[in-house]
Amino acid sequence: MSELTEISNLGEFGLIEHLTKNFETQQASTIVSIGDDGAIIDHFGKQTVISTDLLIDGIHFDLMYNPLKHLGYKSVIVNLSDIYAMNAIPTQITVSIAMSSRFTTEAMSEFYEGIFLACEKYGVDLIGGDTSSSKKGFIISITAIGEVTPQHFVKRDGAKKGDLVCVSGDLGAAFLGLTLLEREKKIFLENPKIQPDLENESYIIGRFLKPEARADMIDFFEKNNIVPTAMMDLSDGLSSDILHICKQSNLGCRIYEDKIPIAEESRNAAFKFSLDPTMCALNGGEDYELLFTIPQDLFEKIQLNNQISVIGYMTDAEEKSKLITKGGNIVDMVAQGWNAFGAQ
Amino acid sequence: MSELTEISNLGEFGLIEHLTKNFETQQASTIVSIGDDGAIIDHFGKQTVISTDLLIDGIHFDLMYNPLKHLGYKSVIVNLSDIYAMNAIPTQITVSIAMSSRFTTEAMSEFYEGIFLACEKYGVDLIGGDTSSSKKGFIISITAIGEVTPQHFVKRDGAKKGDLVCVSGDLGAAFLGLTLLEREKKIFLENPKIQPDLENESYIIGRFLKPEARADMIDFFEKNNIVPTAMMDLSDGLSSDILHICKQSNLGCRIYEDKIPIAEESRNAAFKFSLDPTMCALNGGEDYELLFTIPQDLFEKIQLNNQISVIGYMTDAEEKSKLITKGGNIVDMVAQGWNAFGAQ
Repeated sequence: MSELTEISNLGEFGLIEHLTKNFETQQASTIVSIGDDGAIIDHFGKQTVISTDLLIDGIHFDLMYNPLKHLGYKSVIVNLSDIYAMNAIPTQITVSIAMSSRFTTEAMSEFYEGIFLACEKYGVDLIGGDTSSSKKGFIISITAIGEVTPQHFVKRDGAKKGDLVCVSGDLGAAFLGLTLLEREKKIFLENPKIQPDLENESYIIGRFLKPEARADMIDFFEKNNIVPTAMMDLSDGLSSDILHICKQSNLGCRIYEDKIPIAEESRNAAFKFSLDPTMCALNGGEDYELLFTIPQDLFEKIQLNNQISVIGYMTDAEEKSKLITKGGNIVDMVAQGWNAFGAQ
Repeated sequence: MSELTEISNLGEFGLIEHLTKNFETQQASTIVSIGDDGAIIDHFGKQTVISTDLLIDGIHFDLMYNPLKHLGYKSVIVNLSDIYAMNAIPTQITVSIAMSSRFTTEAMSEFYEGIFLACEKYGVDLIGGDTSSSKKGFIISITAIGEVTPQHFVKRDGAKKGDLVCVSGDLGAAFLGLTLLEREKKIFLENPKIQPDLENESYIIGRFLKPEARADMIDFFEKNNIVPTAMMDLSDGLSSDILHICKQSNLGCRIYEDKIPIAEESRNAAFKFSLDPTMCALNGGEDYELLFTIPQDLFEKIQLNNQISVIGYMTDAEEKSKLITKGGNIVDMVAQGWNAFGAQ
């Protein structure tokens, strides 16, 4: 094993230079990148979209089971997902980190490997940031910048009565991945000799540790001339997130339990943990799928896409937000995200 | 005294709503603000400038002498200063904070009062952010967005041989303010009954606790058709910062000690602390003045402005970066910022 480098040997500017030296920008709009007081972007003729997230060791992630490379990747994805949720295309990010002296340059390089991997996959440029020390732990702050054709952005407040409520992909898997990792962590802490039992669970673990953002959906919308009336990304759980759309659009909704897409792997894991898969989809979070509403007359267009499920429809505000269970019961949708005081 | 509100009573969304409910946007370019996945900005025909900073309790500030309102104000200023240093005009900011449970909603309201005060004074909109909990202390992440006429931005790498090196305002005061506050903190910790002796020191304390960004300089440049060849803001100290311009422009410089502007209040404070005022200007930091280079033929234009001091000139890289002392000695400029592994 080669010797590890203490970050203080490099200093702040040395560290930024070291971590970003091989990174090349891809976006024509990136005019000035890392290394100055600010970065310059040319969004000529487009509108600029901005989203930001602050992620803290012990609150938003656990370094015991979040490998640094995955963490770098996921930190970027979480922000890109917010940009896609505006029906926009992410173009640049800034990454600021603070870490205590126990982190080595090699550890930071691993983290940045994940950052760069996500940048490459989604075609975004890293254009700036800030590196400093922290007294304890690891802090990540990412701001994502994107662009959208003027007036093509989609907010949360535009849903209309009768609109179909849709989600991309499947839900609940990330929460189940987290549940499994937490269980294995507990077992490991009690007896460090026991190896983690993650066999056959790569789907749910992958969904939690290395999620993807739904760039393909924005692409599909554009190619098919679909503009959702409201949209957001699923970070807190379906029940909490649909209530934002209802509140901001001043409407209610009906969601059908049997229409909520849940992967076979998630169902199996839920049964193993004696959890209700529907509850995992409703109250779990971090799926980074898109939740959106469209007028009913666009139903035929979205039927083409097997990644989209229609799970309900919007109603008047007086009808509240309700879940129709498989047994036909009508129950209130209640926001109880697993991380209600966490990331936005 | 009215009862204090624990933040957990409001929850994340409640807290954001509570803190930002009275804030109105001022910029025509702000299309979508707080409350969605992202914010939308219309910089049609302009280029976008981005800068970001991460500030951490115990590293970048000390809550023992940084009142929260001042801290909010300063956190914004630090970022706006970076935008001005690109010769651009700041238009929007995002603010993310994380705090431990010991902070009350009232404390956060105070912090945001400072944020809003800076926003109002500099005409920028708060357009988004993120609120979460931390295990310990207080973490602030701010991203500033600005705009600049295409190709009018000024980087650090454009200085030419023979260019004049200029600074705005006066230097060293913030470092002396910090030194005084650190001294009073030490005395207070040793004997809490002794009241702090801050009499007659409001200038240096103000420069540290509540700095301003040099918007007036950018305005002066525009009105007088001046485009500096290189520019940055003085956050780490003159000696460290001029070396960035030298390195990135591949040049050297000669700086004259007797030309470095230092306020009378700073000289007096330095003598009281047995410090060399020049060393405070060279190695202190956080002055948030602008350091810039201009061609010699613009000298007459800048003479009009008593806020600008010419402190030296740029040379070939082979001549290195040197300080000509009052006694006529020539010494190397050495980067030894007081916070070398701190904010960018």
